[in-house]
Parts: sequence; structure tokens; C-alpha cells
Amino acid sequence: MSNPTAAMLVIGDEILSGRTRDGNTHYLAGELTRHGITLAEARVVPDAQPRIVAALNDLRSAHDHVFTSGGIGPTHDDITADAIAAAFGVTIGIRADAAALLQAHYDRSGLPFNEARQRMARIPDGATLIENPVSIAPGFTIGNVHVMAGVPNIFQAMVASVLPTLTGGAPLLSQSLRVNRGEGEIAGPFGALAAEYPDLSMGSYPFQLNGAHGTNLVIRGTDAAQISAAMTRLAALFPAQ
Amino acid sequence: MSNPTAAMLVIGDEILSGRTRDGNTHYLAGELTRHGITLAEARVVPDAQPRIVAALNDLRSAHDHVFTSGGIGPTHDDITADAIAAAFGVTIGIRADAAALLQAHYDRSGLPFNEARQRMARIPDGATLIENPVSIAPGFTIGNVHVMAGVPNIFQAMVASVLPTLTGGAPLLSQSLRVNRGEGEIAGPFGALAAEYPDLSMGSYPFQLNGAHGTNLVIRGTDAAQISAAMTRLAALFPAQ
Repeated sequence: MSNPTAAMLVIGDEILSGRTRDGNTHYLAGELTRHGITLAEARVVPDAQPRIVAALNDLRSAHDHVFTSGGIGPTHDDITADAIAAAFGVTIGIRADAAALLQAHYDRSGLPFNEARQRMARIPDGATLIENPVSIAPGFTIGNVHVMAGVPNIFQAMVASVLPTLTGGAPLLSQSLRVNRGEGEIAGPFGALAAEYPDLSMGSYPFQLNGAHGTNLVIRGTDAAQISAAMTRLAALFPAQ
Repeated sequence: MSNPTAAMLVIGDEILSGRTRDGNTHYLAGELTRHGITLAEARVVPDAQPRIVAALNDLRSAHDHVFTSGGIGPTHDDITADAIAAAFGVTIGIRADAAALLQAHYDRSGLPFNEARQRMARIPDGATLIENPVSIAPGFTIGNVHVMAGVPNIFQAMVASVLPTLTGGAPLLSQSLRVNRGEGEIAGPFGALAAEYPDLSMGSYPFQLNGAHGTNLVIRGTDAAQISAAMTRLAALFPAQ
């Protein structure tokens, strides 16, 4: 009945130091919601194998799918593929099909397929490749874990490759009502309405504009007719003022 | 010797559904780095008490400090304070000093201090209040957990209240070198240099500009002289081209 769940694992010191702001989680959240998969949790861990392995094993046993971003490039701090292999207890090495893709790419570019670049063909045993139309170096899927690049346009292209292969549930739908009242004014009747619709999720998000308080009220669920009915009730509770 | 560690726990369905992009983790990361506290992990969980309790208990036992954002407003979906109380096994109720602050605020505003607004004075037993200069409703600290609002300007004001009370270590310093070469070209010598400086962390972050590949190389550590020495070596490895 309920939708499959997923987790996001962001891997990278640069996120935790504040150098880089992660945008991949927000992107994935929107894509999964449209596809009927519930993003149930997200984590950020540093480039440290024991931390990656522990988080990955937690998440892959708790959720139907895990998506990772970051750490699959050619440099010494790109340790994701080895950490994933360790988490699954499988060996890892340069794989012929991945190496062939990269060799052809660098031949076209007139660049040497050197030792560093060959690191990007290291794939855990038993994985399948995820296409990278942007810069060729593939991601991979092993078990229920989808390992993808951290660079946003490559991450997004890999999500586009993987998502159609996953069975989704009913897409999560939402309707919003913007009211020119603070949360403290609407909370009572809004909470009472939410209690009448246990299958819907209702949330309130306050904002300030020109010194005045307002609130966006959001109704989420998978049944469009039920959301519309609840929204009609909500709009009647808080007419424009 | 090593710096204290912290974790961030973001609480909110709206982040996981893709409606809202979390910016508080990135803000906190930068502030902690400057203060000499290592942000070691971040998690996002939905508005569900068992999920909040489990994540909080994991994080507060693993790190010196935990910061939470979200779920402390007046509406029915604001369940953070109750979840924190449950995690610590303490009771929670409307606290006189928090209620007095809010009562005075709403008296000044000519608004009723109604039942919903009184929810914002619910504080777990044994907590101390965190000042909210923006909208008065306080956050709180209990044990090593700092519970703060999700609205970014309020979150930031609360971080500014809490951070000076925490003992930091040596601030994490960094220097960057931007090179007009792809990661695959610099990875070999860059990795060899990193191996010579085990106390420093070196990372590479690729970018594309007008179709050309480039890489930002970042050296991080707490010893400014050592970072400078390594950066001099790095700049010599990759002269401008």
C-alpha cells in the first residue's frame, strides 16, 4: 500500500566544512516525490571509509533504495567506490567495460588514460553501471544502492538514468494556501482539520513579508480528491482578509 | 588535541518532500568551522517522533554537540520539543519564564496568547532557554543538544546565541588553488603531495567553464604555516598555464 522509501547519503568533507552547499538532496527529493518514492532520510558523512560503511549499512537495510553522491572521481580523496565494496563485502577492481568507455573518451579528447583516470573504472564486483552522459565516468548500482557523482549536473543525469528503472508508488501530491495570518492564529483550527484527515499530511510554513506575518499551509497526500476536499474546507476556514 | 565534534539534525517533512531546500546545515557548517568545532555528520528526518528520537539518541551519544532545526512552532506538526523530551526521558510542560516572554510579546502586539501560541512555551524539564531576538519564542539546550527554529533568520540568531558558550578548538583553515586542468591530470601528483602531509586534508573539486575542465584544489588544516608550506609546493606543481 504505502510507497517505497529511499535514503540519500551525501559523501564529502567539503559539505561538512561549509565550503560547498549540497543541492543534490533537494533535487533528488523533488524527483522521488514525483516518482512516488518517499525520501525518508538523508545523511551527510565525511570522506572516511568507516563512516561511509556504517551509514550505508544502516540505510540500505532500512530503506528500499539508497542514493549516494560524491567521491567517485580520480583523486586520492575519492574513496566512495572502495567504501561501498567494503560495505557489501565484495572485491573491487578496474572493470573492462567501464575502462573501455573511458579509454575511448580520452582517446577522443587526446588525453592520456593515466593511472588516476583508471581509478574511475574501479567498480565493485556484481555492480551494474549507471550511464554518465556528461563526463563518461560511470556510476553504479549494487544491491539497492545507487552510487552517483557529486557534481550536480552529472548527479542529475544519473538520477534520470536510474529513476525510470525503479518501481514507484502513487506520486505525492500537494496543494498550498497562503494566508496573511501568523501560525499562532491559524494553528488551532488547522490542527483540528488535520485531525479529521489522518491520510493527509498538513504542514504550516511561516514567513515574514514587509514586517507582516503570513503562513503557507500545505496539504500533502496521494489522493487528489481528498486533498481538494480538505483544501476547500481550509480555504473556508481562512478566507482572504 | 583534536577539535570537538558536532552533528546537525534537520527535522521536517518539507525538506524530504523537496518543498523546501535546507540552508541551515550549510550555515551551521561555516560557523562551526570558524569556531573550531568539526561538523562530523548531518541528518534529515521527517516529523515523526520515533524517527526523531532514534536519530537524536544516535547523534548525542556520538558527538560533543548536536544542533537541531525545525518543528518548534505553534502548529500540530511542530513535535520537536516533545520528541526531545521523549529522547531524554524527561517530562515537558509550559514553562513560566518562556510563557512570560511570549505573553509580554503578544501583549505588545495586541494579539491573544492563545492555546496554540502557548505550545511554544513547552520546554523539556531541565533545559535552559536559547534567546530568540527575532520572534521571541525560545529554543532550548538540554544536555549536549541545542534545539533551534527552522526559519533561517531565527536559526542563525540562535546559533549566534549558543556558539559563544561552547568551547571550540583551533579553527579549520583552508587555502585554495584554482587550476585550469581536469582532475584526471592533477590527481597523481596531488595525491602524492597529500600523502606527505598527513595532518592536512587535501580535496579537489572539478568544475567546467565554457567547456573547459578545471579543478579547485583545497588544503585544510589547523596549522597555518604547514598549510602555506604545502600550498607553495602545490603551486609549484601546477604553474599557471
